[in-house]
Order: sequence, then structure tokens, then C-alpha cells
Amino acid sequence: MKHKQQRRSYCPINFALESFGDPWSLLIIRDIVYFGKKTYGEFLSSEEGIATNILASRLAQMEKQGIITKRQSKMERRKEEYVLTEKGLDIIPLLVEIASWSAGYDRETAAPIDWITLCNTRKAEMIQLIRETVRDGGAVFVGPGSVLSKLAGEDHQL
Amino acid sequence: MKHKQQRRSYCPINFALESFGDPWSLLIIRDIVYFGKKTYGEFLSSEEGIATNILASRLAQMEKQGIITKRQSKMERRKEEYVLTEKGLDIIPLLVEIASWSAGYDRETAAPIDWITLCNTRKAEMIQLIRETVRDGGAVFVGPGSVLSKLAGEDHQL
Repeated sequence: MKHKQQRRSYCPINFALESFGDPWSLLIIRDIVYFGKKTYGEFLSSEEGIATNILASRLAQMEKQGIITKRQSKMERRKEEYVLTEKGLDIIPLLVEIASWSAGYDRETAAPIDWITLCNTRKAEMIQLIRETVRDGGAVFVGPGSVLSKLAGEDHQL
Repeated sequence: MKHKQQRRSYCPINFALESFGDPWSLLIIRDIVYFGKKTYGEFLSSEEGIATNILASRLAQMEKQGIITKRQSKMERRKEEYVLTEKGLDIIPLLVEIASWSAGYDRETAAPIDWITLCNTRKAEMIQLIRETVRDGGAVFVGPGSVLSKLAGEDHQL
């Protein structure tokens, strides 16, 4: 019989924090959603400077939690890539809320102001668009199928 | 001249995580918002079992970030209590998103199902109601001025 892992409590806030409530886990999810990163090497190169052992443990933890899943890269068969599951995609509204909060309080923020305004004024629509884009292998800011290029094609203000 | 603290990056996700992106910080904010806790002793008694040194460091960190503020208790003048600032109150939408995500995936959740349904179906309204209640010294689940008692008085379905 599998031994059940100890939980700190059954509070829903605590459940989420035990699943992905770690700065590094959330930055990995950010890298996938906003920048289309997929591989260990790509996550490692992010500017926050995650350590190799922390990156490996967070990827394993999120895979175990069913938030990300590992598969063989279509581009390079030797490489493994990580993508968000449905459970992982459902964290996107949280990322949007986190970014909105910061954009409101961080005077030095690197967030594009037009993008933040769009997320604040048409939040539900943007969350839906980000979710569909990331599920289909795209990202918010990077790549030909990105949310930004979709918005540009639809004559949005961005 | 004051030495500027090093930031990992200027990304808005990272900014929030450096401000309160720690499981223990978010559980303290949860205690304030949902359970009306205000004092060091009350936070210490939460079921997740925060350690005294972690609690003290997280309170100091959030006070420094302007998320909570310390004041003399009106009830017991010897005691200090912590309340959310406007910047701290703006974290409430995030808590609601976190709880919604968990309620959808945690089959053992302690979250009242009716409450989660209400937050999912009338999210903007509930966030506003929670914000006003907490700003006025109340909480979601506890006390005579709680969100729950307001909803009951207004013949809501809870």
C-alpha cells in the first residue's frame, strides 16, 4: 500500500501552495506561459538564475502533481520538453492576477504597460486567449502563434 | 545613501513573488482575510504549524513591503496587531483564484463547497465584498461582521 504523503492542512490555499506555491515553480510556469520555454536548458537560462538542483526538484514536483507533463521534443528527439496539463493551464488566471498586482505597485516593472492595461480591462477574454494559445503550443510574447501576434492580426490596440 | 536591495529581475511575476511569494506569507494573509486573525499568537496557532522564527521574519518582510501594517490593539493595549494595507488588500483577488484552483483539484479540500461555487459564479462581486469587509476589520468566515453573516442577512444562498 502506498504511504500517503503528509499534508500541512486541508485548506484550499494551503493545497495550492503545497502544489506550486514556491517562487521557483511559479517562475517556471511563467517561462512556459509567457515565453514559450519548454526545456531544462531554457528554464535554466532565465534571468532570475535558478540553480540546477532547484530546477530539477521543482520540475519533478510539478510533474508529480500533474501540473506539467514531460514528453519527447518534436524538434530534437534527444531532448525532453515540459508542457502544462489542463490542471497547469488552470493556473493561468493566477499568473494574470499576480502580474496585475505587481504592475500596479512596481514602479520599475519590466511589464509592457499596454499588455497590463489589456489584461486589466479585458481580463476574462485575455485569460481565455492565453489558455488556448498555450494549450496549442504557443506563448504570450514569443513565437509566430503568440498571443501578441494574434492580437496584432485582429487589429487590437497592442 | 541607502543601499538598494538586489532584485532577481524586473519581471512582474518575480516582483510579486519577492514581495509575498512564500507559502508562509500567503498563509498569514489567508489568516487575516478568511479568519480575522490579527496577532502573532493567532497566526502561530494555525494548523499548518508555522515556526516562530519564520512567522516573525515573514511579518517583518511584509511590513517592510507595505503589505501589512502594525498597530496597537484596540482590545488589549499591550498587544500589537497586523492589518492589511491597500496594497495588501489588493492581494485578495489572488487568494480567491488560488482557492478556486484548489477546490477544483483537491478532492479532500476543507473549503465549503457553497462558498467556492459563489466565488466562481460571482467572482468580481465576492472579491469586492471580501475587500470591503476586511478593510473594515472583518473577515470572510469569522465574526459578526463577516462576509458570511452579510450574505445570510441579504438572503443569499449561503
